[in-house]
Amino acid sequence: MESVILASASPRRKELLEQIGISFRCHPAKGEEKADGTTPEEIVKRLAQQKAEEVASHYQEGIVLGADTIVCCEHEILGKPENRRQAAEMITRLQGRVHEVYTGVCLLHMHSGICGRELIFAEKTEVEFYPMDQEEIEHYIRSGEGDDKAGAYGIQGGCAKYIKGIRGDYYNVVGLPISRVYQSLKQMKAESHDTINCK
Amino acid sequence: MESVILASASPRRKELLEQIGISFRCHPAKGEEKADGTTPEEIVKRLAQQKAEEVASHYQEGIVLGADTIVCCEHEILGKPENRRQAAEMITRLQGRVHEVYTGVCLLHMHSGICGRELIFAEKTEVEFYPMDQEEIEHYIRSGEGDDKAGAYGIQGGCAKYIKGIRGDYYNVVGLPISRVYQSLKQMKAESHDTINCK
Repeated sequence: MESVILASASPRRKELLEQIGISFRCHPAKGEEKADGTTPEEIVKRLAQQKAEEVASHYQEGIVLGADTIVCCEHEILGKPENRRQAAEMITRLQGRVHEVYTGVCLLHMHSGICGRELIFAEKTEVEFYPMDQEEIEHYIRSGEGDDKAGAYGIQGGCAKYIKGIRGDYYNVVGLPISRVYQSLKQMKAESHDTINCK
Repeated sequence: MESVILASASPRRKELLEQIGISFRCHPAKGEEKADGTTPEEIVKRLAQQKAEEVASHYQEGIVLGADTIVCCEHEILGKPENRRQAAEMITRLQGRVHEVYTGVCLLHMHSGICGRELIFAEKTEVEFYPMDQEEIEHYIRSGEGDDKAGAYGIQGGCAKYIKGIRGDYYNVVGLPISRVYQSLKQMKAESHDTINCK
């Protein structure tokens, strides 16, 4: 498969691409992305696109992959917590109910420095937490695991014991919907054997 | 939490208990479990119970955890493949559709060599595969990842790129529904402060 450039510094996204055997180089976007979309889907798609476009400007060939993940609880977006007090507030809010995790993905297929094909989508996964008591919340926050994560938790670590179930792609919650990314890369590869249409 | 004895040799179950910070010792059941239940839930519950009871007979104190996982596709149970030909048949069958994974769990709380409390349940997770072509199936089989796994695949490895989504507990598919196990252990702990009722 053609060379993939991951426009993200997230160690979890790197691990996921490695897990499914995609070879890639890492070139994190540096800009401060901003999006004021009206829906969570729109927001993550725009953020993913901004990351991918920033990085794509440095490449002549290859497929640039931008991604962004947010947590949404009762119509409010929870980003990364600024401190542990805010992290505790987020977990308190998530416990005992269902929330949504959205990851936006943007794939830009570059040919001779021009984007020949663009694929953008948002994937949603619903996550249900068991109720947690104060001691459990404090213990989890102290572990520091949620410090750098949207919604202040990671489904792949110690928080797993509080997660009753999900509906959708598990890896989307970790930070990248790898099956849909893989299917999209396959599609791009198949199309590139035909004509490359300009964006 | 009271000492947990895992009646399984599965490295994945060990990793899952470690992930959620439960300290345990490992004492795999040796017997050949057999079950001829009428439903997948009944079968995995009976198999888990047989494993737990065999191991519990060696302990005076502690909570013995037995578990068994099966994959069910169109009302047929898929166990571990006997060879790679059978593994390829299983993956061919699973691709492009939804199947169910059931894990049965049996917890036996031992006091002075007697089981004071028993908790048995079966957890179901639905798993949807993307369609796979022959090359993809063969490549996955050759990786050997599915050789020792029910249904001939592991959701946590390279097969992740073919899994569109799930409904239920992800870790149940890996081999142990850790959130429900944790909640059950909590419940047992709370109850043991009250009276211990004989089975």
